[in-house]
Amino acid sequence: MWQLYQYPLCPHSRTVRLVMGEKGIAHNLVREHPWERRDEFLDLNPAGETPVLVEDRSGDVLIGTQAICEYLDETNPKTPMLEGSAAARAEVRRLADWFGRKMWQDVVAPLLEEKMFKRIISRASPDTVRLRESMRAANGHLDYMDYLLDHRRWLAGSRLSLADFAAAAQLSVVDYLGALDWRGHENAKNWYAVMKSRPGFRPLLGERMEGVAPPAHYDKVDF
Amino acid sequence: MWQLYQYPLCPHSRTVRLVMGEKGIAHNLVREHPWERRDEFLDLNPAGETPVLVEDRSGDVLIGTQAICEYLDETNPKTPMLEGSAAARAEVRRLADWFGRKMWQDVVAPLLEEKMFKRIISRASPDTVRLRESMRAANGHLDYMDYLLDHRRWLAGSRLSLADFAAAAQLSVVDYLGALDWRGHENAKNWYAVMKSRPGFRPLLGERMEGVAPPAHYDKVDF
Repeated sequence: MWQLYQYPLCPHSRTVRLVMGEKGIAHNLVREHPWERRDEFLDLNPAGETPVLVEDRSGDVLIGTQAICEYLDETNPKTPMLEGSAAARAEVRRLADWFGRKMWQDVVAPLLEEKMFKRIISRASPDTVRLRESMRAANGHLDYMDYLLDHRRWLAGSRLSLADFAAAAQLSVVDYLGALDWRGHENAKNWYAVMKSRPGFRPLLGERMEGVAPPAHYDKVDF
Repeated sequence: MWQLYQYPLCPHSRTVRLVMGEKGIAHNLVREHPWERRDEFLDLNPAGETPVLVEDRSGDVLIGTQAICEYLDETNPKTPMLEGSAAARAEVRRLADWFGRKMWQDVVAPLLEEKMFKRIISRASPDTVRLRESMRAANGHLDYMDYLLDHRRWLAGSRLSLADFAAAAQLSVVDYLGALDWRGHENAKNWYAVMKSRPGFRPLLGERMEGVAPPAHYDKVDF
């Protein structure tokens, strides 16, 4: 059985969970707080980051969102994550990186620091300037989703792909942290409503990070 | 013909150049300084980052190191970059990300800022504390290469792979900036000497970034 090392608000682990949910791959969740830098976890992944996926019988260890998702896609054909021509696959990978790295850096990492780490770990007050900047950046990412969805059925093209799950995973953490304003983003909002009804989303929306409560609309499909 | 948008010290573009060199894929270099945020370049890649690879006849635009390298590997079988089982491929992707993202963040990005941007753009003095930290981090990455090469022929396993080219590309920029100390890193040094003799390396080592001179040993295979 697969063991996924993660914590509820890790958007990268959420990407993996959504992909496993789509593909119907059974797995257990193992709670890991990477900021605690546990020795056993550093032995698994010297980068000290979630997600890590371990097959407890074979001992296989898979590390990193892109590497894990590509592995799951290569070994499990259900709901393919990277379909089409080499150019179409490159566009999926570009956007998986856009959301998983750029949106993470611009929006999700600073929000997690200000709204989660400072609340539950350092007990400091959030930096309101940085919060405002992150929320402005979140708005920019919603604009970009609107733009893509003006031209395409799904974010990377005519097919549902890893790009959609990577984007939805990052967005779901921003939403949990109360930093999304959907006004003026009809395309992105409609797309996110569809994503929320996908198989992997429900268990994920039911979970809570201790000490950090989401807004009331967070787990509603109609928000 | 492929047009690669890059600048000489962009380590991500160097990864793509090494892969194209291995595969014998003809391409032109287009000089792009992403920090100038040229409108035409932002139209190509809204992330404003190099590398971008454009096929000028078909108009295909490929963006991002991993997406480009996977595309080149899928469409050109010479010197495969991701061979073996799904688990072996996951290990290649883990290490390509380790060097392309973690070593970049820990070592290469701060070095470029202190030793290139401050010299040629802002004309400020480098922050010596940050330089020392980057060089210490570079040493840690060499330790990790030594460790991997104690157990394996190449960085990701028994086969030469994208992980080796990603690592060599980052390392070559650190070396250009005079921040490598090979003492005590025999494994990594021997591996890098082999990498330096690969087909894509020679043209790359002959180039210079204006205003930033490399140390004398930089382009020697025997260093």
